[in-house]
Amino acid sequence: MSKIPHFTFDLDAPGVNTGHLFVPKGADCEALSLPVFSLNKGKGPRLLITGGCHGNELEGPIVARRIIDWLPGAQTCGRVIIVPELNPLAVQAWNRNTPIDGLNLNRVFPGRADGSVTERIADAVSRLLLPMADTVLDLHSFGPLWEFPPATTTHPIADADLMAKTLRMAEAFKLPMTLVWEHDDTPGMFDTFAQNQGKVFVCAELGGGTVGAEDLGIYEAGVRNALIALGLVEGEAEYPTFRQQKSSQTLETLTSDWLRSPARGIFEPRCSVLDEVKQGDLIGILHSMDSLSASSVDIRAPTRSVVCAVKSGLHVEANDGVALLGRPLNP
Amino acid sequence: MSKIPHFTFDLDAPGVNTGHLFVPKGADCEALSLPVFSLNKGKGPRLLITGGCHGNELEGPIVARRIIDWLPGAQTCGRVIIVPELNPLAVQAWNRNTPIDGLNLNRVFPGRADGSVTERIADAVSRLLLPMADTVLDLHSFGPLWEFPPATTTHPIADADLMAKTLRMAEAFKLPMTLVWEHDDTPGMFDTFAQNQGKVFVCAELGGGTVGAEDLGIYEAGVRNALIALGLVEGEAEYPTFRQQKSSQTLETLTSDWLRSPARGIFEPRCSVLDEVKQGDLIGILHSMDSLSASSVDIRAPTRSVVCAVKSGLHVEANDGVALLGRPLNP
Repeated sequence: MSKIPHFTFDLDAPGVNTGHLFVPKGADCEALSLPVFSLNKGKGPRLLITGGCHGNELEGPIVARRIIDWLPGAQTCGRVIIVPELNPLAVQAWNRNTPIDGLNLNRVFPGRADGSVTERIADAVSRLLLPMADTVLDLHSFGPLWEFPPATTTHPIADADLMAKTLRMAEAFKLPMTLVWEHDDTPGMFDTFAQNQGKVFVCAELGGGTVGAEDLGIYEAGVRNALIALGLVEGEAEYPTFRQQKSSQTLETLTSDWLRSPARGIFEPRCSVLDEVKQGDLIGILHSMDSLSASSVDIRAPTRSVVCAVKSGLHVEANDGVALLGRPLNP
Repeated sequence: MSKIPHFTFDLDAPGVNTGHLFVPKGADCEALSLPVFSLNKGKGPRLLITGGCHGNELEGPIVARRIIDWLPGAQTCGRVIIVPELNPLAVQAWNRNTPIDGLNLNRVFPGRADGSVTERIADAVSRLLLPMADTVLDLHSFGPLWEFPPATTTHPIADADLMAKTLRMAEAFKLPMTLVWEHDDTPGMFDTFAQNQGKVFVCAELGGGTVGAEDLGIYEAGVRNALIALGLVEGEAEYPTFRQQKSSQTLETLTSDWLRSPARGIFEPRCSVLDEVKQGDLIGILHSMDSLSASSVDIRAPTRSVVCAVKSGLHVEANDGVALLGRPLNP
């Protein structure tokens, strides 16, 4: 058994069960044991919640544990499986990618049984975890370098029916922003792999920057709302309060909506997320590090938009993304 | 001239002048040119403002530039010199220390002319910049891994008169927290070196986490308040608004006030900065990454205190600091 991925416990037993998903060793590192929580209440929706795909996005692992604490007293039917850290090696290193092979777990799906460690994790997830769920909530965040609101995202999906179901699930979190996010076709993503099997897959982007107590409460409320919408839990959904507001908007953003730094230097953010800006409004300023008499460069909004993400003040290279703009979906 | 540190311009000329502080090359890297701003309005206080001592604390470099933009229309007397980035190599690398020699600039003062690059920067600052000022405002922050309020700090100073003057200067920022911070005797700090020469040295700790637009406004207001208090600028100081509050408190914290992680695992913050906590209140939770059935460990307040700093949710090692508590100074 130690050469193939397997669960160390019986997930079909009724009630709460915990154990591990075993990922076999390879040439590059020893075997991994990913902690898994399962709550089986019989017939009903089959949900998988994952966190820690990227090691510097700790909102997911923490919120997943809060849901594990809450669920035994709340879930009334169906099955929920939770894996707080898909990539424990990256989490330990506080690194987006796995240090051992340098790979991004969210770019290697469906993985390879005889590959490097990141590929072996993806292989175990693809073959054992994913078949047990019809809906996947993968808990990411924008990481420490961005200001980003609590949000759920989905990419455009060719299948119109699956797209509609996915968007409904994303909006059910009732977080401040639901984002339909066009980006360049990227192979190996977990969401594309799951969606190609007809599953509803929502990528939550639980804010950015510091992982703080107040924001964690918002993220947990969002995931609870999703479980209520799925019918796994009884109760009323609530809009969490973010910056004194209880509201949610659905936006879309295109690959052309990235604002990029015109040169290397220090980026000074001049707007905040969810700000509504009009053409010409100041988004940020790029300052030269070489001279104080060289003029700074203003980075301005090209059109009327909503600020979806803005980079933390830091040193950037030419062409680095510094802000992501969006606009209402089907206004 | 290229073998010794020097200014590339005349700082004694009246009015605004900009140029560079030249740091000679050494065996480890080429010469550096640190951009310098000087505004000479004749007699009056002599102030030095520095930022970018640590390369992942960009609040200082950005606020320093805002002050440079504002000062020509505001300063009425005296001399202000501003160096937004003391350590451009660390800023470019978004790293606390200098990548080339691995040194922390704030641990190598007064530096060495024939040392590694970090020591050569400290040497140039010690010999050329520091003698031109009686007051130094060194703009730091708590960095990306901490929730921290906008604050000024000073360490306890043996000279009671200098301590009182330093505390008055720190409080003049009117930021939410002024902190008298005891820590272990650490050689090579910029503040100790300046204070040993009788100078008033305030270390601003301009928040932590993401460097965002809203917070930058608070930091800039704090530095403006300090310049008004010094008499360099005319006007009325104002308390900036932080989390819907306009208030300031002076706290002290001891080396024994660090709360540390009891083991390795994921730290979940359960309090926010400036929270008042009583004995036994929950500060955070440490979660095991190995098993979901292993119990988590609560980290609780040992006494009635105010939360000065709390770590972002992330993977920590045993004995890592996760929160810093304090209490009112001379309540």
